[in-house]
Amino acid sequence: MTSNDIGALVFDVFGTVVDWRGSIIREGKALAKEKNIKVQWSRIADGWRAGYKPAMDRVRSGELPWMNIDQLHRMILDGLLTKYKLAGLDEAEKDHLNRVWHRLKPWPDSVKGLKRLKKRYPIATLSNGNVSLLMHMARNAGLPWDCIISAELFRHYKPDPEAYLGAARLLDLRPEQVLMVAAHKDDLRAAQQSGLRTAFVARPKEKGARADADLTPDPAFDFNATSFLDLADQLGA
Amino acid sequence: MTSNDIGALVFDVFGTVVDWRGSIIREGKALAKEKNIKVQWSRIADGWRAGYKPAMDRVRSGELPWMNIDQLHRMILDGLLTKYKLAGLDEAEKDHLNRVWHRLKPWPDSVKGLKRLKKRYPIATLSNGNVSLLMHMARNAGLPWDCIISAELFRHYKPDPEAYLGAARLLDLRPEQVLMVAAHKDDLRAAQQSGLRTAFVARPKEKGARADADLTPDPAFDFNATSFLDLADQLGA
Repeated sequence: MTSNDIGALVFDVFGTVVDWRGSIIREGKALAKEKNIKVQWSRIADGWRAGYKPAMDRVRSGELPWMNIDQLHRMILDGLLTKYKLAGLDEAEKDHLNRVWHRLKPWPDSVKGLKRLKKRYPIATLSNGNVSLLMHMARNAGLPWDCIISAELFRHYKPDPEAYLGAARLLDLRPEQVLMVAAHKDDLRAAQQSGLRTAFVARPKEKGARADADLTPDPAFDFNATSFLDLADQLGA
Repeated sequence: MTSNDIGALVFDVFGTVVDWRGSIIREGKALAKEKNIKVQWSRIADGWRAGYKPAMDRVRSGELPWMNIDQLHRMILDGLLTKYKLAGLDEAEKDHLNRVWHRLKPWPDSVKGLKRLKKRYPIATLSNGNVSLLMHMARNAGLPWDCIISAELFRHYKPDPEAYLGAARLLDLRPEQVLMVAAHKDDLRAAQQSGLRTAFVARPKEKGARADADLTPDPAFDFNATSFLDLADQLGA
């Protein structure tokens, strides 16, 4: 394939565009100081994220009815608040903390890279985050999306094929005209199975100092990049 | 209500944000010159638009299966090409002409007004136009939407309540927190019946020199404005 065959780029968001872990730790520490709470926020961040896939899987399997990510995040957060004995937050404060996911900060190259890519291609999210979450995040972080596409629109979380194929349909493109950009190889492999093109972007700091992220380029993907700027270079954008 | 009660603005697009009639006539004339076609393009534009509501009604009633606006536009266009004996366009040219709706130009105040409104409120489309059409239009015209919301997402065209309520749900707002902005009173009345707030914006030139547009302010709406800039003033944006 060449970059001319691509009709649009769709992006995984948590971890690929924004730094969920660093953002949660930063906001958590500020909240802890204000409320005199003692807890290791890296544990909250990691626990929150670790609860995410199992929670979605319960929706995907039909065990839970459709719940959006704000709702799943809240369910996981309530468990963490109990586990770490974090009392003293009222309902409004819990709700605000839950919406930290609406306020995640982009990686340093994200906004600049997206702006370059957008000049040549339509750029859209393709995230499990709900529409309002992604929209508020874009407003807070200055992410210049042409379109917010979310698993919520299809009531199917990635890696269900309905999410990838639904995005192509809304963009009025054949799957092979859509380039999925993600820092997670399982997401890209599922996109590939639905016929999408794939670009892997390594995000070595996503999980903090933990070294378990697989950052090696994989020739099975159409592109392997070290940042959105590198991807823009490779795409001639 | 006050402007503080509003959580987001949703906009009708054809006629409210963009000048469909003037844009089609302009592009049509350029095409006619190139292809040596003789036809009154105001008739094509008016006929195209006149076919729009009946075509959607056939989908709304279930007579036709779900078809998006690109598809309905093409169905109407094919009828007009026959009616006005416009031969000589090949398939690629017909497809390009059909997508003139992706290239409609905004009213002079639209982009500036949307940028002001966006500083204070999330702004989204709420149009019967399909997602890809609205996205391409936004890219062509520089419309700074935070989110593309389309009847296509709900498979219900306005004025079906599913479209208005679906938009509120995706925005994670109660209907009364959503302000629907439109130049068409029937659209606003339907939004109102679903519990949304309403802002009427008069667009005296939408139908060209024809004088049948109802431009008078109506106290039944929450706001009545003469442009998006006037609306921004009224909302303190």
